[in-house]
Amino acid sequence: MSFQHSHDAELPREEQDLVAAAAEFCRGAFSDHLLDTHNQGQPYDAAWIGKWAEAGFLGLQTPREFGGHGASFLCKIRVAQTMAEHGFAAAFAINNLQGSVTRVARAGTDVQREHLLQAMLRGDVLCAPAMSEPGGGSDLGALTTTARRVDGGWLVTGTKSWITNGQIVHCANVLARIGGDDGGDAGQLASFLIPLNDGDTFRREEIHMPGARSFRLSHLVFHDHFVPDWALFGDPGQALRTSMASVNAARVHVAAMCVASMRAALREAVDHAHHRHAFGKPLIGHQGMAWELAEVSLRLEAADALVWRAAQAVQADAPALTLAAQAKKFAVDVALWGIDQCLRAMGATGASAAHRLAMQSAETRLGAFGDGTSEMLLDRIGKQLHQEYGAAPPRPPIDRKDPA
Amino acid sequence: MSFQHSHDAELPREEQDLVAAAAEFCRGAFSDHLLDTHNQGQPYDAAWIGKWAEAGFLGLQTPREFGGHGASFLCKIRVAQTMAEHGFAAAFAINNLQGSVTRVARAGTDVQREHLLQAMLRGDVLCAPAMSEPGGGSDLGALTTTARRVDGGWLVTGTKSWITNGQIVHCANVLARIGGDDGGDAGQLASFLIPLNDGDTFRREEIHMPGARSFRLSHLVFHDHFVPDWALFGDPGQALRTSMASVNAARVHVAAMCVASMRAALREAVDHAHHRHAFGKPLIGHQGMAWELAEVSLRLEAADALVWRAAQAVQADAPALTLAAQAKKFAVDVALWGIDQCLRAMGATGASAAHRLAMQSAETRLGAFGDGTSEMLLDRIGKQLHQEYGAAPPRPPIDRKDPA
Amino acid sequence: MSFQHSHDAELPREEQDLVAAAAEFCRGAFSDHLLDTHNQGQPYDAAWIGKWAEAGFLGLQTPREFGGHGASFLCKIRVAQTMAEHGFAAAFAINNLQGSVTRVARAGTDVQREHLLQAMLRGDVLCAPAMSEPGGGSDLGALTTTARRVDGGWLVTGTKSWITNGQIVHCANVLARIGGDDGGDAGQLASFLIPLNDGDTFRREEIHMPGARSFRLSHLVFHDHFVPDWALFGDPGQALRTSMASVNAARVHVAAMCVASMRAALREAVDHAHHRHAFGKPLIGHQGMAWELAEVSLRLEAADALVWRAAQAVQADAPALTLAAQAKKFAVDVALWGIDQCLRAMGATGASAAHRLAMQSAETRLGAFGDGTSEMLLDRIGKQLHQEYGAAPPRPPIDRKDPA
Amino acid sequence: MSFQHSHDAELPREEQDLVAAAAEFCRGAFSDHLLDTHNQGQPYDAAWIGKWAEAGFLGLQTPREFGGHGASFLCKIRVAQTMAEHGFAAAFAINNLQGSVTRVARAGTDVQREHLLQAMLRGDVLCAPAMSEPGGGSDLGALTTTARRVDGGWLVTGTKSWITNGQIVHCANVLARIGGDDGGDAGQLASFLIPLNDGDTFRREEIHMPGARSFRLSHLVFHDHFVPDWALFGDPGQALRTSMASVNAARVHVAAMCVASMRAALREAVDHAHHRHAFGKPLIGHQGMAWELAEVSLRLEAADALVWRAAQAVQADAPALTLAAQAKKFAVDVALWGIDQCLRAMGATGASAAHRLAMQSAETRLGAFGDGTSEMLLDRIGKQLHQEYGAAPPRPPIDRKDPA
Repeated sequence: MSFQHSHDAELPREEQDLVAAAAEFCRGAFSDHLLDTHNQGQPYDAAWIGKWAEAGFLGLQTPREFGGHGASFLCKIRVAQTMAEHGFAAAFAINNLQGSVTRVARAGTDVQREHLLQAMLRGDVLCAPAMSEPGGGSDLGALTTTARRVDGGWLVTGTKSWITNGQIVHCANVLARIGGDDGGDAGQLASFLIPLNDGDTFRREEIHMPGARSFRLSHLVFHDHFVPDWALFGDPGQALRTSMASVNAARVHVAAMCVASMRAALREAVDHAHHRHAFGKPLIGHQGMAWELAEVSLRLEAADALVWRAAQAVQADAPALTLAAQAKKFAVDVALWGIDQCLRAMGATGASAAHRLAMQSAETRLGAFGDGTSEMLLDRIGKQLHQEYGAAPPRPPIDRKDPA
Repeated sequence: MSFQHSHDAELPREEQDLVAAAAEFCRGAFSDHLLDTHNQGQPYDAAWIGKWAEAGFLGLQTPREFGGHGASFLCKIRVAQTMAEHGFAAAFAINNLQGSVTRVARAGTDVQREHLLQAMLRGDVLCAPAMSEPGGGSDLGALTTTARRVDGGWLVTGTKSWITNGQIVHCANVLARIGGDDGGDAGQLASFLIPLNDGDTFRREEIHMPGARSFRLSHLVFHDHFVPDWALFGDPGQALRTSMASVNAARVHVAAMCVASMRAALREAVDHAHHRHAFGKPLIGHQGMAWELAEVSLRLEAADALVWRAAQAVQADAPALTLAAQAKKFAVDVALWGIDQCLRAMGATGASAAHRLAMQSAETRLGAFGDGTSEMLLDRIGKQLHQEYGAAPPRPPIDRKDPA
Repeated sequence: MSFQHSHDAELPREEQDLVAAAAEFCRGAFSDHLLDTHNQGQPYDAAWIGKWAEAGFLGLQTPREFGGHGASFLCKIRVAQTMAEHGFAAAFAINNLQGSVTRVARAGTDVQREHLLQAMLRGDVLCAPAMSEPGGGSDLGALTTTARRVDGGWLVTGTKSWITNGQIVHCANVLARIGGDDGGDAGQLASFLIPLNDGDTFRREEIHMPGARSFRLSHLVFHDHFVPDWALFGDPGQALRTSMASVNAARVHVAAMCVASMRAALREAVDHAHHRHAFGKPLIGHQGMAWELAEVSLRLEAADALVWRAAQAVQADAPALTLAAQAKKFAVDVALWGIDQCLRAMGATGASAAHRLAMQSAETRLGAFGDGTSEMLLDRIGKQLHQEYGAAPPRPPIDRKDPA
Repeated sequence: MSFQHSHDAELPREEQDLVAAAAEFCRGAFSDHLLDTHNQGQPYDAAWIGKWAEAGFLGLQTPREFGGHGASFLCKIRVAQTMAEHGFAAAFAINNLQGSVTRVARAGTDVQREHLLQAMLRGDVLCAPAMSEPGGGSDLGALTTTARRVDGGWLVTGTKSWITNGQIVHCANVLARIGGDDGGDAGQLASFLIPLNDGDTFRREEIHMPGARSFRLSHLVFHDHFVPDWALFGDPGQALRTSMASVNAARVHVAAMCVASMRAALREAVDHAHHRHAFGKPLIGHQGMAWELAEVSLRLEAADALVWRAAQAVQADAPALTLAAQAKKFAVDVALWGIDQCLRAMGATGASAAHRLAMQSAETRLGAFGDGTSEMLLDRIGKQLHQEYGAAPPRPPIDRKDPA
């Protein structure tokens, strides 16, 4: 078992095979395509989503009874990392689509599952979660999108912002506040699965992000947009809790992709330093360069170890609010620093279109804002400091593993 | 199970109890004594070693058949961390003594075990490993101490440097080169268990380290010092290999104590910031302070996760040369930075005799040089970069855990 | 006099006016154009070079007798900084053109001045220095481009790499080694002012740098390219010395633009944090955000102070090899870190096409490789350490300013 | 003129001579004494203060008409740096004494000057400023020490904290709030020059700072301590303003000593790396080590340049609140990091009693809290960010140096 390189040995065999298949998928044509389109200032071709679906990966976490793989969170993370080594934005965006499939499979109503799940698994219907709003960052208490009860459904009004895949999705999982005259639920947050038909009551506004277009970021603008009854996702009142519950997983997931993106950058820099010579020996044979890249490698492993530990906590359903926030803050910082170090170690060549580092740098930088900026994470951790690190924090009773 | 605070739940029950007993030992009088003597510029009273032995801890890793606990490497690390929270130097020095007991128990000759082991377990005979030399850092190839064959034993000549506990040990485990006229073994390294009787042929030279006297650092100077036959430790030729094999464990061990020392510093800073008020609220309620300490906490957890992963590799006897070096380099950097941040967050108060931070800072700073400076570690990692991180590194076959 | 913001008060009045005129030029349409074209993945329109020439800035350092302003190095730096606040790449590239004009004016032969100088001042003839080669970074000893003597001139063969403005210049100032059969000069380096007529003996190869196209980087490939006698620039043998002499100035110049680019980023982040509100007050009113940006501001001022000190040394013709290398290494590190901090402080918005930060980040990152990578600079400084910082370095006699 | 090493050439000749004389004083016996007493856990012998006075340095800034040198702020800084290279705490403490002399000379009443100034210049009467209080850090609004009017004087009650030289001074310059029944001045802050006769109404409480005892920190506790009329220092109401005005100078002064302490550490590390060999060449000939120390050198120069710029602003009486805070925050961070890097580069040897680095590290660390912690400085800078760095900050009119 290799403690150095990979956690795959800790997964069951079928999940190891899934990770290997994902790696096989990404190598070669797909990887080249990501770099080429980035260099042309374009997003990757959405047709690749269909191929990814065809290979079964949109159903990665969908339970087996619905035709998915029923894979674990740890497996999901390893698959996402595998793709992120080739391109952060594509990995972020495609795994986002997979997340929406999983949510409908696990928590959708029977009607939703019946109408949508198989089409989602095939990649024919793409869906995006839509929580953020223009003003508010992640302050769910300040959420202003409303859903007003009408006959046979709801009228939704408001703007959702920074929606990954927003340019191409066919529906969105929208968090909205129930309008004032709807009995006991008024004021509560509810989640809706809303088909997105561009028209008078709905439009998309692309957010131009040069250098990171594969996120396909968009604002989704609703104005008295009619949504049928069946679109309601679970009970109002559950929506907020569900959204909060998923945030730890989402943070660890982004953190894991940052680590993978940095690992790929290190590989590129090490290979370059191994093959290029100066003053009669490989660059990596010069002590200064060796130390620079050694430092990158050890911070990479620290981020990897912390992220994996947080992932184990999420997988075990253990309390992980602080740990997930710590893992994300650390992984983001280390990855952005590390990719940049690799780029600099390669000289101007590293920034050219022939290499993947400038792309990874720009895409990871942007993706790192997802699911909590560093500032929010520090606030979150800061509030827990005394409980977690004070002189007499309440420690849970030790779980004795061996029979007494 | 708490993923945040502790790995103890991963230990078997008896080892959890050992860690708890060590924590109980260190709390209170011992902890106060460490701080008081440091503040007076003195080492801690060596009588505490006897008490620690009495509590059974010098036999922590000694096999049960010889009267020890037969504890694992992971348990050893947790015990060392527990003491390091109260004082890095004492933990480093006392665990060093324990290591020598373990070595005699595991690898000593029958004669050595018979004569010395029980006295060592009681703390009546203290022993220190002695490898470094004045000129050489850790370059074992350049080792100059010699052992010349004479009737009934050997004459040892040379100087061993930077010996922890050097001022108080009764014997030393000395690495020396066999003299030129000793047949096939000439030039090979051998390890001797040498009683240290101060006199004409042996003397100690204290190394004055103000602020970190509990290491009791000393040079050991031998000149034609007679050593009886039975002192030879294993086969000549084995000595070098044994010394190299233990280096990964030693590095992870130091790294783990750095993490513990930093964790204690964070606790002290968090408590201070929780109880002291400014502008009408606790210091920790001010965002800037909260963020500073949050950043310390997350780097602490990263170091903790990396060190534990390296410890697992050592425990599993997996290849760990690179990983152990990475863990030590990272843990040292983070701990020195982190203790300093905590100290600064407390203001001048933090540096006063009432707090443990200045002591931890000075002691950890010095202890961090043990078992490989940062420069050596970077060299070590640098040499492995291409193999570990290059495009097609040889990956070991995946160990399938589940039955196929 | 403001010590905080600006060194302009240290310039003579006419130079202050030049800086102010440059600021006026850059504001508005030019600034918008830089951002727009960057967002479209295009270089800025070269027609702006003509306007800059028309405003007299290509003759900034050209002596007054030839129609220039005869401005000082300090003034040149302030003008470059003024433009770099709007776009690093354009500032780097356009000032590069100015440098070539200055070189012809100051050090060209009479024939060169007569034929080219006025056209260069008008921007009708653009010229680039061409020293680097594909293999060699900045190792001038390893330079392989050759100039072979033929009737009426020379035949030049070799490739010059990473040439700023390479896609658009009409001539290049090429450093080449004199061919083996040319008497006493054989093997010496010489500098030629070579007209670039694309054809059989010369071609350009664009280096694709997505995200930083305004540098217009190119390889220049010569194969038996004929160069007339009058193209020789000064004496062979002088060329190397001249090239080396200019390197300190070039390093300080790049460093100064890095500082300016970072200053503009800070302005953008501060304004954003001042105008955007969260939790009932401006972002900048939150302590965490205020501290983050305060830290950026103070490192900015440190870089500014060091760069200005180095600039004063260059201006005074004092020895500045170490100081210029230190200033560049520090300014580059601080600027790349600082722009990134500003970008992160603004959230995803900061990376959007509406802001200048992603552009500045990508362009400054690439431009920072110019005139010595960080690795080369550290080597350079390292070699001087003992002389500059050792116990008894040879200090120059103190220059007494006041009459004794 | 050397831009690299020293700003001395910018001083007038007599001030250059003062700096040279201070350097001569510190070299040799004094320097050795500082290290020896530190290693013994003792403060330096106060008799050295008399010798320093004898050499004329307690009157460094005292106007010439009173028998001092009337030296400038820049000169004062260079003298302080010169001593700080040998020991931070002694430099901090002794220059603190000089500051009190200066204050009496410049701002004392005639009676105060007549009674005290000559004795102070001789070092027979030592005085310390006393502003801080136990609870309050530097919040002068919360100051609780009171002075109640009685016949012929005042009764002072309260505690002053963290007083440098508190163990040995004969009088203190105490900031107190005028008691409630004293007419129009009630509630205002006033400054008193209070003789310290230990007894029932006054006592000192030493603050034990192991490793930094030369500061001789103490609390001064007053309880109905009688102070004669002539002790009042200037007008009540002026006191606060005067205290605030001196804070910029004090910050720059501490920052300058941090820079000097770091410069001495670098010298020690460079010399060690120059003389000690490994693998057949000097340590400094190994690229990794050279780069580490090169990085220290360049941050040192950045701190030096920024501090000097701030010092020029203070000297010119220009607004320097932000700049002084930036300079102190940066210099402290760089110095603590840099001294630590130097110590680590020397290995365990660097921490031994034979070297000055552990002493400088501990003393500089503590001294850095003086005149504003990093947290206070960031708050201070943060509040000015928009005015100093926003898009349209009010810039002062440019001061034209050349005649129009």
